[in-house]
Amino acid sequence: MERVVVTGASGFVGSTLVDRLLLEGFEVVGLDNHNTGTPNNLISALKDKNFTFHKIDLKNEIRTLSRHLKNTQRVFHLSANADVRFGAENPFRDFQQNTQVTMDLLACMRENDVKEVVFASTGSIYGESNCIPTPEDAPFPIQTSLYGASKLACEGLIQAFSSTYGFKSTIFRFVSILGPRYSHGHVIDFFRQLTANPKELKVLGNGFQTKSYLHVEDCVQGIIQGHSSQETNLEIFNLGLNETCTVRDSIAWICNEMNLNPKVIYGTDPRGWIGDNPHIHLETSKIKGIGWEPKYSIKESICSTIEYLKGN
Amino acid sequence: MERVVVTGASGFVGSTLVDRLLLEGFEVVGLDNHNTGTPNNLISALKDKNFTFHKIDLKNEIRTLSRHLKNTQRVFHLSANADVRFGAENPFRDFQQNTQVTMDLLACMRENDVKEVVFASTGSIYGESNCIPTPEDAPFPIQTSLYGASKLACEGLIQAFSSTYGFKSTIFRFVSILGPRYSHGHVIDFFRQLTANPKELKVLGNGFQTKSYLHVEDCVQGIIQGHSSQETNLEIFNLGLNETCTVRDSIAWICNEMNLNPKVIYGTDPRGWIGDNPHIHLETSKIKGIGWEPKYSIKESICSTIEYLKGN
Repeated sequence: MERVVVTGASGFVGSTLVDRLLLEGFEVVGLDNHNTGTPNNLISALKDKNFTFHKIDLKNEIRTLSRHLKNTQRVFHLSANADVRFGAENPFRDFQQNTQVTMDLLACMRENDVKEVVFASTGSIYGESNCIPTPEDAPFPIQTSLYGASKLACEGLIQAFSSTYGFKSTIFRFVSILGPRYSHGHVIDFFRQLTANPKELKVLGNGFQTKSYLHVEDCVQGIIQGHSSQETNLEIFNLGLNETCTVRDSIAWICNEMNLNPKVIYGTDPRGWIGDNPHIHLETSKIKGIGWEPKYSIKESICSTIEYLKGN
Repeated sequence: MERVVVTGASGFVGSTLVDRLLLEGFEVVGLDNHNTGTPNNLISALKDKNFTFHKIDLKNEIRTLSRHLKNTQRVFHLSANADVRFGAENPFRDFQQNTQVTMDLLACMRENDVKEVVFASTGSIYGESNCIPTPEDAPFPIQTSLYGASKLACEGLIQAFSSTYGFKSTIFRFVSILGPRYSHGHVIDFFRQLTANPKELKVLGNGFQTKSYLHVEDCVQGIIQGHSSQETNLEIFNLGLNETCTVRDSIAWICNEMNLNPKVIYGTDPRGWIGDNPHIHLETSKIKGIGWEPKYSIKESICSTIEYLKGN
């Protein structure tokens, strides 16, 4: 039985991936510091004899990490500070949690002769691309957020480990992910505001930002399919839907799902916060070319997220 | 009088830039750990009352660095591990000396309200581009060396500091630099080999690699001109010559300059080492568009380098 390690295992995407890998018959070792992930997400996984979990902060426990990597076939590296919004408050946060941890992890993997890595990157690394929908080989981007910069640095390291040490690497650049276990982002912010005050909703930015979202099941299916179809040392796949919605569209769907009709107060800026990319739409023909097809539309993803939030 | 800080001030390019900045009338503070740079390069600068030098290892002395940044207008950040070749030996070296130092420097600059940075990046971040000559907005590259990855990470951080904190940043992507004070790379390797044994020269790779080189005076002129012409928050310039030579060409020029006719033994690989990019040729129409013109051909740069090495 193949042993795989999942970092960020208690997180939204990480825990959904853990469940799927167990279904596929892997022995799964989950690592998480429970900073943003929660043990609740692993309730079902923990009942599986093929799953073990270790609470570990990858920033500070590199020797412990090294022990957990022994006899491992590959690492699904999903642990990260995953919220682009608050990067400006502390310029070190994304760097330490994302870039430094990835550097340490790769070096640890090399020491333990673990040479396959699957990495959760982000469409944010395209910055504000002029090329929309944005393909994997879009013009060399300019970083517009510390979060994007931290993930770009991770990608560069992974690519260099592939060419220098023969790592087999798969990099997925996600749009925002929605669905059960979702825990941060604009849908939960709006849900919380409307739960506290059903009559009013304050929106960051002018609401005309066009965004793309992907359901977590489609995301995990993409990770499994993209990784297992890979024939070269290094592959990069965008993961997103070939549709966008405006923030205003999503507000209408959320309010409808919650049976509310609040007064909506928009900001005036085209961006909601520093580093907010007002137009996100990734070109996904590469991952579609290997047979991946998403099951959920953006509207369905948003509605299923609200349904999950209502019950939790 | 404007006060500027130069990191890597005792290095090949750094010390040449220091001399030039003093000529331009700046108050210059030089920082270097003398790891690869040498005090000899600063003999003339140290006679100038507008120059001060501090020996400091930026990896370990961030509080001291912060003190040196007070009342500074801008930082020319040239300190780096600048040799792509030995990256594979220690995967942390480029990351620590280049990426982590740049992160610390930027955070320190922000603390001291120093918000202009000029950065020495590298054409290595284009990896093995299919687009030759390679423009600044070439397709999103794949990193092929730990050195390139470390510099890509620096660029991303600088760009993010520009968009997040309003830094004014200029990034220069160099080809290999030659000329007086040159201290590492294939020309000195060949020179040393031929000095030790004038009858034989061993070459890494098959010698058909096509490379571009730039004279350090042309490089420094490009830095000064590119930076001072800048009107936006962030500009990226390639710096190189619009010509290439093969390693075999450069061997012929070196041997001629040294009056030698050795037996040349080539390797069989198209690359000289892991991460060696066999075809480097940067598109430089952007920097030429602001009036920059190089004075030295590749042949002239190689010959002037040999002349310098003979005398030192």
